[in-house]
Amino acid sequence: MSDSVARRADGRTPSELRPIYFSRGFTRYAEGSVLVSFGETRVLCNATVEEGVPSFLRGQGQGWITAEYSMLPRATQVRSAREATRGKVGGRTSEIQRLIGRSLRAICDLEMLGERTILIDCDVLQADGGTRTAAITGAYVALHDAVYGLVRENQLSDSPLRDSVSAVSVGLVDGHPLLDLDYAEDFRAAVDMNFVITGSGHFVEVQGTAEERPFSMEELDDLRNLALAGCRDLHRLQLRALEA
Amino acid sequence: MSDSVARRADGRTPSELRPIYFSRGFTRYAEGSVLVSFGETRVLCNATVEEGVPSFLRGQGQGWITAEYSMLPRATQVRSAREATRGKVGGRTSEIQRLIGRSLRAICDLEMLGERTILIDCDVLQADGGTRTAAITGAYVALHDAVYGLVRENQLSDSPLRDSVSAVSVGLVDGHPLLDLDYAEDFRAAVDMNFVITGSGHFVEVQGTAEERPFSMEELDDLRNLALAGCRDLHRLQLRALEA
Amino acid sequence: MSDSVARRADGRTPSELRPIYFSRGFTRYAEGSVLVSFGETRVLCNATVEEGVPSFLRGQGQGWITAEYSMLPRATQVRSAREATRGKVGGRTSEIQRLIGRSLRAICDLEMLGERTILIDCDVLQADGGTRTAAITGAYVALHDAVYGLVRENQLSDSPLRDSVSAVSVGLVDGHPLLDLDYAEDFRAAVDMNFVITGSGHFVEVQGTAEERPFSMEELDDLRNLALAGCRDLHRLQLRALEA
Amino acid sequence: MSDSVARRADGRTPSELRPIYFSRGFTRYAEGSVLVSFGETRVLCNATVEEGVPSFLRGQGQGWITAEYSMLPRATQVRSAREATRGKVGGRTSEIQRLIGRSLRAICDLEMLGERTILIDCDVLQADGGTRTAAITGAYVALHDAVYGLVRENQLSDSPLRDSVSAVSVGLVDGHPLLDLDYAEDFRAAVDMNFVITGSGHFVEVQGTAEERPFSMEELDDLRNLALAGCRDLHRLQLRALEA
Amino acid sequence: MSDSVARRADGRTPSELRPIYFSRGFTRYAEGSVLVSFGETRVLCNATVEEGVPSFLRGQGQGWITAEYSMLPRATQVRSAREATRGKVGGRTSEIQRLIGRSLRAICDLEMLGERTILIDCDVLQADGGTRTAAITGAYVALHDAVYGLVRENQLSDSPLRDSVSAVSVGLVDGHPLLDLDYAEDFRAAVDMNFVITGSGHFVEVQGTAEERPFSMEELDDLRNLALAGCRDLHRLQLRALEA
Amino acid sequence: MSDSVARRADGRTPSELRPIYFSRGFTRYAEGSVLVSFGETRVLCNATVEEGVPSFLRGQGQGWITAEYSMLPRATQVRSAREATRGKVGGRTSEIQRLIGRSLRAICDLEMLGERTILIDCDVLQADGGTRTAAITGAYVALHDAVYGLVRENQLSDSPLRDSVSAVSVGLVDGHPLLDLDYAEDFRAAVDMNFVITGSGHFVEVQGTAEERPFSMEELDDLRNLALAGCRDLHRLQLRALEA
Repeated sequence: MSDSVARRADGRTPSELRPIYFSRGFTRYAEGSVLVSFGETRVLCNATVEEGVPSFLRGQGQGWITAEYSMLPRATQVRSAREATRGKVGGRTSEIQRLIGRSLRAICDLEMLGERTILIDCDVLQADGGTRTAAITGAYVALHDAVYGLVRENQLSDSPLRDSVSAVSVGLVDGHPLLDLDYAEDFRAAVDMNFVITGSGHFVEVQGTAEERPFSMEELDDLRNLALAGCRDLHRLQLRALEA
Repeated sequence: MSDSVARRADGRTPSELRPIYFSRGFTRYAEGSVLVSFGETRVLCNATVEEGVPSFLRGQGQGWITAEYSMLPRATQVRSAREATRGKVGGRTSEIQRLIGRSLRAICDLEMLGERTILIDCDVLQADGGTRTAAITGAYVALHDAVYGLVRENQLSDSPLRDSVSAVSVGLVDGHPLLDLDYAEDFRAAVDMNFVITGSGHFVEVQGTAEERPFSMEELDDLRNLALAGCRDLHRLQLRALEA
Repeated sequence: MSDSVARRADGRTPSELRPIYFSRGFTRYAEGSVLVSFGETRVLCNATVEEGVPSFLRGQGQGWITAEYSMLPRATQVRSAREATRGKVGGRTSEIQRLIGRSLRAICDLEMLGERTILIDCDVLQADGGTRTAAITGAYVALHDAVYGLVRENQLSDSPLRDSVSAVSVGLVDGHPLLDLDYAEDFRAAVDMNFVITGSGHFVEVQGTAEERPFSMEELDDLRNLALAGCRDLHRLQLRALEA
Repeated sequence: MSDSVARRADGRTPSELRPIYFSRGFTRYAEGSVLVSFGETRVLCNATVEEGVPSFLRGQGQGWITAEYSMLPRATQVRSAREATRGKVGGRTSEIQRLIGRSLRAICDLEMLGERTILIDCDVLQADGGTRTAAITGAYVALHDAVYGLVRENQLSDSPLRDSVSAVSVGLVDGHPLLDLDYAEDFRAAVDMNFVITGSGHFVEVQGTAEERPFSMEELDDLRNLALAGCRDLHRLQLRALEA
Repeated sequence: MSDSVARRADGRTPSELRPIYFSRGFTRYAEGSVLVSFGETRVLCNATVEEGVPSFLRGQGQGWITAEYSMLPRATQVRSAREATRGKVGGRTSEIQRLIGRSLRAICDLEMLGERTILIDCDVLQADGGTRTAAITGAYVALHDAVYGLVRENQLSDSPLRDSVSAVSVGLVDGHPLLDLDYAEDFRAAVDMNFVITGSGHFVEVQGTAEERPFSMEELDDLRNLALAGCRDLHRLQLRALEA
Repeated sequence: MSDSVARRADGRTPSELRPIYFSRGFTRYAEGSVLVSFGETRVLCNATVEEGVPSFLRGQGQGWITAEYSMLPRATQVRSAREATRGKVGGRTSEIQRLIGRSLRAICDLEMLGERTILIDCDVLQADGGTRTAAITGAYVALHDAVYGLVRENQLSDSPLRDSVSAVSVGLVDGHPLLDLDYAEDFRAAVDMNFVITGSGHFVEVQGTAEERPFSMEELDDLRNLALAGCRDLHRLQLRALEA
């Protein structure tokens, strides 16, 4: 299937990202605050810098980066209950926030960061598929702003960020590999993968799930290649947003 | 003290509201979605219409309006923990969401609404004082949009809203009554009151707290008058936003 | 409507309190222990003095007063579940205990109290309306006993209580303002207010809710005046109880 | 050691109960309401009759009797935290309420009771040792009142109570078997036992714990005999209270 | 009924234990690890030695022994939900783990143990009645192994264990006293007792419950004698296992 | 690095599995019960068949397969707290049990299964790395036994299992790709991946995490190939165990 022939519902080619925007400084108080849009998916990523580290790291002379993730109840077509009301953080939420944290730590020299914690709150205002990949991609920009704030205030002599990081979903829909699935595509996907990839093209996380049928080695390779190209684009868009 | 003499830190007169904006249709999926700004305070009010009513009302032929309230962790200068992480809804949150729900029910004919529930999610994106009064004022606009959606779809023959409602804070700061306190003013206020008032000038809720010292009957009357005038202005701004 | 004409179900005039009793020393171990009765409403108020203050106050050289409130499951006509069994403190409970705490702190010089905490447990043994106002009124007497215990033991050179405090409910029932509503009256009230007022006649808290219909400025003033007179009576009864 | 020689701190002989009182009708709304005193231990036992049974019994044509137990925070010398605040019912509480429920069910013909539930709330207002035995002993009286209410209202043709039940603690203190330990004696006891015994002298529950040292068969027999005599006295006092 | 006449479903005489096995070193990491079998009941008892004691014992120069108890969901015929999933430890579980802890502490000189804690995890892999008595009996062997590990490593100069301890259930089934009930017998028992008895024949815990009908003094004595004989056998089997 | 040269601490070649055992029928009551060993890692997999499906599937004519995962507290070198005691299921646990469920559903025709649920409890008795891959591999065997039980009892006319499934971990340790990491290897791995692969060689899940440094496309391919070979071996061992 050639890209010029098979158009998706929103007119994209199979290897095309949705419109991507980064709105920096979206709120006033956070050390980094980015509203990231992947099409109709909107995630507010607020970075908070705190002195000190969690107890399991205390006294080891290194910092920590972690994340929390949540959806507003009406981010979706059908309202979902608040986790605070249900009294606990669900399995999916916990899985996503661990993923975001790992992805950001992978590109940061935690010793250079020093004994401080950067916590990125990723709150989904509107969800149309790919909220976790949008969250990682936006969280990197918010992290970058928070880190350069520390540099500007001379709390850090240099940035501990060794690379950039972005994430994208890919999937097999009707037998075709597609990049950056929206909710309707994700719903129909037989296979659903998320890749977290650095600006230099290395893998941080690979997660693939056969939602409908197991997939072959060739299909795995096609999806991987699509994700590599998608993250190259996201990397360029992150750079441009940070230059603004 | 005349208004022309005593200016506040942001240049307002004692009886002047902060800049008030209503951004309708802020998210796509909710039946009513309004981002309300009272100066730097920003609250996203999303109305959800659901068939059915809570069990304590079942079979009584009437509807229900309720609200949930939450702050994003980094809505404030210093990050606060998520209630989902702490595993419970705090006392202040619960008090505010009960207040919002009562305020909206007071201006609605619940029998006309029929056996359906309208739930307004009020999520504070940025907090600079007066989040509960902004939430009520914005929630009315979101409720209005949700209700007129039902009318448009012929699910309701007429609107069950009998009046409008808005809310404002007033307080005694350095002995002076001030309208619509921002965070810095609220922090210094000796007395802090919230009024919920209908478009027709009747009281729905009156809440006053002596934070620092008990207050006299004359002070109570001054604050009440200031709130009445403030809610008249808010009422006008709500009308204008709904005509847009 | 003149008081001599319109009698209530229990024979009271509109501006008459229910029979009020304070039974001091109701339990043995608490530093202050008062069973307060507002008619059939019975609240046991036990004051506990503890060294130290909550962490947010530590090292500031001041004390703290706080309260907890609970109803026995069968305090009411129909049994309600225990909050311990449901695993959390409900919104109404939390709202009331915050109110009691604020009311007591408003009349105490917390610096004079020194770095100690006085916690008042208000447990409703029987509920016939007005449990929160009875709790505040009884808690003041228990607080007084606890404080004078500290003075007697020379832990305090003088009482840090600058005033007394009591509380009363008022409401509009069938269009008439009534003082100190019992459960049946409260149930029928179109407007329900609670006032917390010092012995010197200043306001500590004003809380009014339009349960059925918004209310006018004139109605607000009538209710306020009724509450001022009611709290003057309660103040006198508190004094008499403390002299016993 | 003869009873005439060895007196306890409060002047009792080893085989003497503390002063026992039953105050029936202590609160207004419960179907049975008894304040029971074992010396300074005071437990309020409120019986609630509810239609229906827990789901595991539904459709089996029998009733259920259960109990909840709680201590007011300041029932004791040192205040203990509320279980609602800690968000769960503790192990000791749960153990005691299961014990009370089993004890009452043992003397009731649950089929005769029909598909209804009687729940006894046992709230300790003041604790000086033996709260669980006082609770069982008082709960029987409250249960009796609730059941005879059903008979009086012709909801039951006859009482399903086949026997009465009471409970008492016994222990080895300084090598001597003592009946009905108060807190100070309980604290010093090497062995602590609770017996639940019917009016006809049969055992419902036997619980013995070597707090300090394991005990011999002879000691077990002495304690058992003391308990049998103590429950005979309690049975007589229950009868007298119910005749009043 | 003579033992030679009345055989049970599995062929045992009334006073006969089920086959008892202790498999020491069942897992690798615990300081003591014993899989105990009472017939088809299998409990894994893992002892963990930790430095320090719970806060209520700190600085008193003594150690602590405690236990946790849990059933695998499918230890039983019908699967039961995990307590972690339900979010809390149930009443029965909490009662059993308190019992195991008390039983082990009763035979240990906690001062000799020093400021360390030994925690015994008792996890039921398969349940056919008597899980708590099997747990206590196996926990003693695991405790013994953990303690002698400390002696071997010269952390203790001598064992603080002053005695051994085992436990057994007895009950009245069809009017006959039976030793060591399996699930089917336990289900039919009119009276159910658990005895915890030291190697030297003293009682640590006595717990008897009339499941179906109150029981007489003679029945109590018969059950007690059966338990004494059963624990003598268990004591011998524990010794043999520890010599292996 | 050739396999014959570079030996691991336990003597394995880089592409060699640990000794793998399946002990079927490990407990009596479960419909399938398998203790699986991957070296020193031991996981008990118990399959329970229940009529009916979760509410979100009701009436759709299909079945469901789900899993729960837990570690005994002392499965590890250092004891970890029970999730029941902490009152909630942790993020890692929830992530793993979702993974196990998805893996098993991927090889089952849920419509053929009919409206019943198979729940696999995976309880880790001893943990030395790779507990989630051992759990999936053993759970398949338990699922198989449960399903063939249904076939044998004529509740299913044929097996709904379309394929088999197993899982294995791979990682980069000191730059070398290794198969089936034990705890010590896992701890040192720069990259850690888990693959879930069907008997026919298709992928069900791919999860890779850069623990220490992002990894290249070549490294990803090497790890994938190692996993494919490892799961071929596991598939053969599963077949052999099921033939026994």
